[in-house]
This record gives sequence, C-alpha cells and structure tokens, in this order.
Amino acid sequence: MRIAVDAMGGDYAPKEVVAGIEMARDRYPEIEFDLYGQSDKVKPFLNNEDHITLVQADEVITMEDEPVRALRRKKQSSIVLAAQAVRDGKDDAFFSAGNSGALLAAGLLIIGRIKGIDRPGLTTTLPVLNNPEQNQFLMLDVGANADSKPFNLYQYAILGKYYAQTVMGVENPRIGLLNNGTEADKGDMVHKAVHEYLANAKDLNFIGNVESRELLNGAADVVVTDGFTGNAVLKNTEGTALSMLKLIKHSIMNGGITSKLGAAMLKSTFKDIQTQMDYSKYGGAVLLGVKAPVIKTHGSAKAETIANTIGQIKTMLENHSVDNVVTYFNDHSEEMAAAKAEMQK
Amino acid sequence: MRIAVDAMGGDYAPKEVVAGIEMARDRYPEIEFDLYGQSDKVKPFLNNEDHITLVQADEVITMEDEPVRALRRKKQSSIVLAAQAVRDGKDDAFFSAGNSGALLAAGLLIIGRIKGIDRPGLTTTLPVLNNPEQNQFLMLDVGANADSKPFNLYQYAILGKYYAQTVMGVENPRIGLLNNGTEADKGDMVHKAVHEYLANAKDLNFIGNVESRELLNGAADVVVTDGFTGNAVLKNTEGTALSMLKLIKHSIMNGGITSKLGAAMLKSTFKDIQTQMDYSKYGGAVLLGVKAPVIKTHGSAKAETIANTIGQIKTMLENHSVDNVVTYFNDHSEEMAAAKAEMQK
Repeated sequence: MRIAVDAMGGDYAPKEVVAGIEMARDRYPEIEFDLYGQSDKVKPFLNNEDHITLVQADEVITMEDEPVRALRRKKQSSIVLAAQAVRDGKDDAFFSAGNSGALLAAGLLIIGRIKGIDRPGLTTTLPVLNNPEQNQFLMLDVGANADSKPFNLYQYAILGKYYAQTVMGVENPRIGLLNNGTEADKGDMVHKAVHEYLANAKDLNFIGNVESRELLNGAADVVVTDGFTGNAVLKNTEGTALSMLKLIKHSIMNGGITSKLGAAMLKSTFKDIQTQMDYSKYGGAVLLGVKAPVIKTHGSAKAETIANTIGQIKTMLENHSVDNVVTYFNDHSEEMAAAKAEMQK
Repeated sequence: MRIAVDAMGGDYAPKEVVAGIEMARDRYPEIEFDLYGQSDKVKPFLNNEDHITLVQADEVITMEDEPVRALRRKKQSSIVLAAQAVRDGKDDAFFSAGNSGALLAAGLLIIGRIKGIDRPGLTTTLPVLNNPEQNQFLMLDVGANADSKPFNLYQYAILGKYYAQTVMGVENPRIGLLNNGTEADKGDMVHKAVHEYLANAKDLNFIGNVESRELLNGAADVVVTDGFTGNAVLKNTEGTALSMLKLIKHSIMNGGITSKLGAAMLKSTFKDIQTQMDYSKYGGAVLLGVKAPVIKTHGSAKAETIANTIGQIKTMLENHSVDNVVTYFNDHSEEMAAAKAEMQK
C-alpha cells in the first residue's frame, strides 16, 4: 500500500504535513509514503525517512491559483506529479491539504473517472449528535459539481452506498435525498425527478426525502444532494456550530465571576462537545467516482488530522472501496445507460 | 390599521393565537383585529373584545391539507375568508401560524402579486451573533419557490432592500448573493447569471457573493438565494443550533455533580445565548411581493411570539413597506421588462 502525498498543500505545509505523515507511518507500518514537494523545504521537517520517500516537485500550486490553468501550467507541481504517479499505478491513493479545486481537477483529469460514472462527487463525513445508535453520516455531492442533473444524483447514491459499506461499516446504508420537505412530491424539478428514480431503484435502501434540519440527528446514513445545496449546507453547519461556540465563549467572558467559575467546572463537558462536533476525526473529503482514492483535508489541518485521514485512506484501500464501485458499474453498464436515457427525457 | 388574523392556525390555536392578539392589542391600541375562525371555539379564550372583532369561518385548513386544493374546497375557511378581506381592502394585512403552503397560496392567488413582480419570495429575519454592529439579517427566498430563475433572484434583491429599509431600518442595506464561494465566477448557471446582473444593477448596494458559513457573522443585511437553497440553509441553521443546545444539555446531565453545578452557575449565560439565538423575536416570515403584508409565524408559536409578529406587521404598515415596492415597480416597469428579457436569453 503506497500513498502519494502533496507535501506542499495546506496552511501549515510542509511542516504539519510531514509531522502528520510521520505520525501515520508510526501507526501504520504497512504503508509506504511518497512525499511530493520541494525537497529542500520538506527535508528539514523530516525526522526519519523510514517508509517515506521524498520525490522532488519543483513547483507549487497555491490556494490562489486557478485550478485547471494551474494543472496545465505547473507540470512540475506536487499535485500534478502525485496525481500522475497514481494514474500510472506507482501510488495507490492521493492525499492533499492544498488547493481543493486543483485536487478535484487532478482527480478528474489526470487520475480519471471510473468507467460508467458521469460526474464524480465530493463526499464528507459529518457527526450525528444525541443519537446512541449512529455517530456519523455521509453527504455528497458537497461541491464537486455546481450544476447537477438527476442522473448525477442517482449515481451519488450508489457511490455513497459503497463508501458507507466499505469505510463506515454500515451494511445496508439508509439513503436519503436532501429536499425541502419529507413528502415525495417536494422539491424543484431536479429533486422530484431524482426522488422518483431512487424510489424505484433496486439495490438501494432509499428512505425518501430528508430535511436539512434533521441531518445532525441522523436522518440517514448517506445524504444525497446536488453540489450547490450540499456545499451550502455543509458550510452552514460549520458556520452555525462555530458561531454558537463563539457566542458561548463570549457570553461566559462577559458573565462575571460566577459565569467564569461555572465555565471552569464545565471544562470537561465543553471538551466532550468539541470532540463530538469535530468531524475531522473521520478524515477528509473524498472524491468518489475516480479510479483511486483522492482525499482532501482542511487547509488548516494539523498533524493529528492528517494522520487520521491516512487511516481513512488505509481503510478505503484495504476494503477495496474503489474496486467495488468499478465492478458495480462494469456489471451494470446497460442499466446505467438506460437510466441515463430515461432521466434525460 | 386593521389586521386579519387566522385564529385557527398553529399547534396551539386558537388559545395561544387569541392570547397573542390580546397581548398585541394591549401593546398597540391603534390596531383593530379581525379574528377569523370558528367563533364557538375562539370566544372562550377571549377575555375582552376591545379592538377585536370575531368573524365566523365555518371551516379550518389543517396542516395536512394540500394547499391549493384546500383553498379551492374550503371556501369558508379562516384562511380563505381572511385573505379575501385583505384583497377587498377590509383588512390591511394577514397573519397566520397555520398551514404555510395554504397561506402562501392565499397570498399569491387571493391577495395577488404586485404588478411587475414575477414571483413573490418568502423572507425570514435571522440573528447575527458576535457582531456589535449588526444584530439581524434578512434572507429570501426561503421556500416560496423551489425552482427560481435568475430574474426572480434579481427581484428578491429589490424586495429585500425595501424590507430592510422600512422594517429593519437599514438605510443602505448590503445585499449579498448566497453562493458556493465568494469569487465572482462561482456557482451554478443560475447564480452566475444573477451575480452578473446584480453587479451591474443600479439602486442596489450589491456586495457580491456570500457563503453560508458567514451568514450568522453578518456577511450581509440581505441575503439573496433561490428558494431551494434558502430553505435548506434556514432549516440547517435551526437544526444545527438545536442539536448543539441538546448536546450541551445532554453532556451536562451526564457530566456528574461538578458539571451540573457549573451549569447552574452559567444559567444566566445560557439564557443570554438562547435570547440571542431566538429569532422569533424579529417576528415571522413575510411573503414579499404581494399586495399586502402576509406574515406567517412558526406553528409552535405561543402568545409572546405572536404579539411580536403583530409588532412587525405594524412596522410594515406604518412604514409603507408594500407601497414603496408598488411605487418602485410601477416607476421601473420598462427596466424590469428589459431585465427579464435580458436574463432569459
């Protein structure tokens, strides 16, 4: 098992990336890492080269670069070289904390789509709160495609199912469609069409529409959504949670001595809350539908989160997440062609 | 000033509706109320008929009724009769805590659109947290239209501007477009088209794209969005906030005696947080773009919220919220026709 790592991506690269990879190497001795980056910048942070190979990449794609143009112009960048190594079978998976757009574009254009998949989708794992029977759920697409057609959402459901099975360990994942009401006839034209198709799909445990109000309560294991709404809901969840934590902190600081004392006594409770809310423990966002695991973690990720994300990639590789999808779409190519024709009518 | 009230709508109707209207009557002696409902059910809760007139409505539209069909079949319902009274000029505004779809449909089909407006939009006021310079913002459309065209979003911006000026008292409201990135070229086809148009619009203080992560921080005074995304983001904000409060409560209850003591000491802090988060204090959701104020409050609203919502309606009437919009669209009919043609190309 060999993972290509973009050592230059992320707010704290290469330092925290290298620290995270060393942490992962110590956890998972069976993994080999190829670290793509400017060796003179990466090497000073590397304590020990066991299972880690530095691969020189002269250029860096920054957060400001326009993704597709950057791929074309910066042929010697860590993102381009790492993606090419995955395409050529030298590495099995690709990890980066850098420019999301460039990573998605590299996944699509260099590593390539699985045969039969129209549009790969970006998926994120989020925490379920206050529910002893479920502690996480999956949502996709959260932003790979701003304009999604019904057929794309149908394929997201299949991709989400295999990911939930192979990585989250949910045997028969409940698949919900994010919509503006739970009734079957709700939604805009795209979501009405998807609902009808999912309701009749074999092989899928479709539980109907779910509302964004119920997501953190565990409304479904896999929440299917178009990339525009999914992106808005994901960012809104993060924003609302952060704003509330800030409000609590602020209220305590302005609440006088009793309030501060109370907060001190609640320290372990607050820590518990932060742990439950922290979804980086589940790893990064995955581009599903391409020929190898392509995983992006937050730009602000530090070593611990990066090591967790490597654990997620290990699970994907061990459980053949991508191979299962390749097989499914290979075995169902006629059904897919029929579904596409049907949904474009 | 005369307000038509649906006495039968809401989870606690007619009791809490009547209590809310009596509270509002005591606050605002200049308002006359027409209470539409089954008089035998409404009257027992009414302490004092000063400024309150009961109007018999034999039928009730329930939460389960299909909106448009209900309007057609239940001609003697409180919603239909109240809307007709507003249409006929007997009442100046319409308030309900009942079936949202039926209220929207009554606004559109009975009271009617303002001339020049393609699709009225539903707007809600939300709190801004942690920002001493702004305590609320407006978002529309939050669900009147699942399928919105660019031209509709352009008109939402104008409707939102007048509402923010006349009700929130913001002189030159900053208008943001909810999108999946702040750069001008972000979004799906609809949002790209709207951005281009808003960026060139006269009369609007357009500040560009805003992301859902920044809404509660006060990214804009008026957040323009399509009804599908707006609905998802509104419900997600509510859901995330509620789930977090529940998580905090749960963690405290399971945190042992120190944790419970700490929570007791933070009681006033938690109350302060709840007050800041409670956006029902700003009133209900308003259907903007129809010929009179049509306001919907949460089905679970109790007397206090209902009285606050009446205060909001009073402000709309006093400050000629609707008249200003009528005048604007009357004066700009040629521009609107040109904009519509341009945006449908």
